[in-house]
Amino acid sequence: MVEMRKPIEVSEAVKRIVSHAKTGEVEAVHINDAYGRVLGEAVIASHPVPPFDRSPYDGFAIRSQDTKAASRENQVAFKVIETIGAGYVASKALGPFETIRIMTGAQLPKACDAVVKLELTSEFERSGEKYMTIHRPYASGENVSFQGEDTEKNTVIVKKGERITPGVMAVLATFGYEYIKVAKKPIVAVFATGSELLDISDALQPGKIRNSNALMICSQIKRAGGTPKYLGTLKDDLTLCYASIQQAMEEADMIITTGGVSVGDFDYLPDVYRQLGAEVLFNKVAMRPGSVTTVALCNEKYLFGLSGNPSASFIGFELFVRPVIRTWLFSEKPHLRKGQAILGGDFLKPNPFTRFVGGKLCFDERGMVVVPSHFTKSNAVVMLSAIDALIVLPGRSRDFKTGDKVNIVLLEDLKGSEWPWT
Amino acid sequence: MVEMRKPIEVSEAVKRIVSHAKTGEVEAVHINDAYGRVLGEAVIASHPVPPFDRSPYDGFAIRSQDTKAASRENQVAFKVIETIGAGYVASKALGPFETIRIMTGAQLPKACDAVVKLELTSEFERSGEKYMTIHRPYASGENVSFQGEDTEKNTVIVKKGERITPGVMAVLATFGYEYIKVAKKPIVAVFATGSELLDISDALQPGKIRNSNALMICSQIKRAGGTPKYLGTLKDDLTLCYASIQQAMEEADMIITTGGVSVGDFDYLPDVYRQLGAEVLFNKVAMRPGSVTTVALCNEKYLFGLSGNPSASFIGFELFVRPVIRTWLFSEKPHLRKGQAILGGDFLKPNPFTRFVGGKLCFDERGMVVVPSHFTKSNAVVMLSAIDALIVLPGRSRDFKTGDKVNIVLLEDLKGSEWPWT
Repeated sequence: MVEMRKPIEVSEAVKRIVSHAKTGEVEAVHINDAYGRVLGEAVIASHPVPPFDRSPYDGFAIRSQDTKAASRENQVAFKVIETIGAGYVASKALGPFETIRIMTGAQLPKACDAVVKLELTSEFERSGEKYMTIHRPYASGENVSFQGEDTEKNTVIVKKGERITPGVMAVLATFGYEYIKVAKKPIVAVFATGSELLDISDALQPGKIRNSNALMICSQIKRAGGTPKYLGTLKDDLTLCYASIQQAMEEADMIITTGGVSVGDFDYLPDVYRQLGAEVLFNKVAMRPGSVTTVALCNEKYLFGLSGNPSASFIGFELFVRPVIRTWLFSEKPHLRKGQAILGGDFLKPNPFTRFVGGKLCFDERGMVVVPSHFTKSNAVVMLSAIDALIVLPGRSRDFKTGDKVNIVLLEDLKGSEWPWT
Repeated sequence: MVEMRKPIEVSEAVKRIVSHAKTGEVEAVHINDAYGRVLGEAVIASHPVPPFDRSPYDGFAIRSQDTKAASRENQVAFKVIETIGAGYVASKALGPFETIRIMTGAQLPKACDAVVKLELTSEFERSGEKYMTIHRPYASGENVSFQGEDTEKNTVIVKKGERITPGVMAVLATFGYEYIKVAKKPIVAVFATGSELLDISDALQPGKIRNSNALMICSQIKRAGGTPKYLGTLKDDLTLCYASIQQAMEEADMIITTGGVSVGDFDYLPDVYRQLGAEVLFNKVAMRPGSVTTVALCNEKYLFGLSGNPSASFIGFELFVRPVIRTWLFSEKPHLRKGQAILGGDFLKPNPFTRFVGGKLCFDERGMVVVPSHFTKSNAVVMLSAIDALIVLPGRSRDFKTGDKVNIVLLEDLKGSEWPWT
């Protein structure tokens, strides 16, 4: 029997999902293992930056008051009383017309208030003493990086929920974060369904195809920041299906199935949801591809029933699962990052539903251009290998032509956007 | 003594480097470990997609010739002779006005040439036999995904040198790539230099700072696709320096040092290069920050002498080391991906040298906007934690104002660009 389902808008579907999304826990990792993880605590400046007044150049530390009379015609000489490298502290304080040779990054000696760049000086020796000369006046503070001029102590540098990039690694190291609280990755169980599915290592058989969704979704989980746990193919048997999913709910933080949510005769998942007493948030979305997507909640755990079609399942993951994983990881912008781009090709298939079309980004003098990869009837898996964005075409709209401005979402970006995409 | 160095243009520096860059080797990994690696072989369609004529919908397989007379007024009935699921093959061929119930993805039975969607049919029973009726004619081929319509057998789907994304994982699985040849990651040794450097776990001391460059660069190596090998801090002693670097050349495919390439008195690296008999490709670049960058070649191995300044070392890595790593990984676009963006803030520091300014990307109705993070005298490490692009401002140019179009390069993008950036 054909079950009648009422499609809801994509925005409403996403809203229903994220209204239940919760944040996960934190765990401590050593800084050597922190790259690519998500901060479970804010990074706070444990000292000012720079931590002391220091020289940004190789040169000579001087008292600016001694330079007032200096000019090309009237070069002023300073006696070099000490030489210090970065990491060393001068043992002497400067007297009048004395200077200390100083390296980039070295702490400014006492009583000096300016630095002369090495290449603007001349050096000479007299009676076994070293001297250097300058030929212009210096202002107090010239060529000095002052303590705290970049960052004051206790400033929040990076917020909880941000990904640890190479630049964040640099500040973690600077501020002595040897162990860092990071977001614990959610464990996401994945089931495939479908009697047509062969294993990767199987030879092709009539009527069958290899299971590509499971590995694809496991990689999407990794990209989003979760830990995938592939649990195999669900059997075409309600009792076995139910037992497998109940078991997975013990072991995982959320569960994804691909296939088995359609209205075909072999689809047991609606019955499993009923038997679990799961709250079905929706079971049809006004989108192409992927309208037959079901999301349910059971004991605060999500059951994502994605379509078995490769592109529908790919897109369903990014739209519906990703924000739950990213919220778990403390992100305040858990949705795919939204942008606008110039359409680099025609797309002439108006549809009453919101349409997601794979696209390849390129950058030229027009700015960001997105070239649509045309979906075929089979919604070929092959198309997925070449795209780095999804073009979002509103429903009930006209054709889209080359040069039109369109909304896109970026697949490889890890910054994200807030909802709604508007 | 001040050594005089002649700066070369950034484009010339990059050209000199990549003219020596070579590709690495391949190794086989299981598909479960392939996500994020770089293809060391092209992915080729081992069968057509779809592999057989199949139904894109749940419905009924029919012979289109039987539908000619069908209309709202004259519904035509078909006898249901079999029901097959995806993965199963019909045992019967269709006779006139016979139909087979078929699921999404199932192979088309013999003798049928069109599919009617389930929701456009009515079903009834008569004398214990099942029937379905339709109310319009169907063309031959309607609702059929034909064998090979997406991809013919032996098509190159993804080229060697491309990164394995979730979409690439899906095609690897589809075509039965259980083990995949991927690019072997280059081992990149990293040394820090500088007596001012404390370990991450050390308390701050007067004149000293914690070593942030080493961990930052190790993360940049990971992001670019290499394996970092941090070998500690080089000692302020020529003999020890030389021995450490010679040892590293045995263990690593390329070597990065940060700091110690300036003209300061404590900089031993130029002497080490001489002693190694390394060919110095350049030792000064007309860029800010990072003009004191040295790149040398010794026994076909690169010695990257990056500045000790955090942002200079960060940028030097992305400009000079990254393309060598990406070329090693078979990329044809080994350079940071270039784009154009609208400047989202003023930048009023003209400089005779090409300037690289960290920037934060955002997307609004103007397209891609980049907000410059202003470098201070200290070239603060803190700035690096917030940027996702570098703004490239040509030398000898005027001020840049909000709204100007500027060239940028993207830090987190893994697609890359060819050289030259023009």
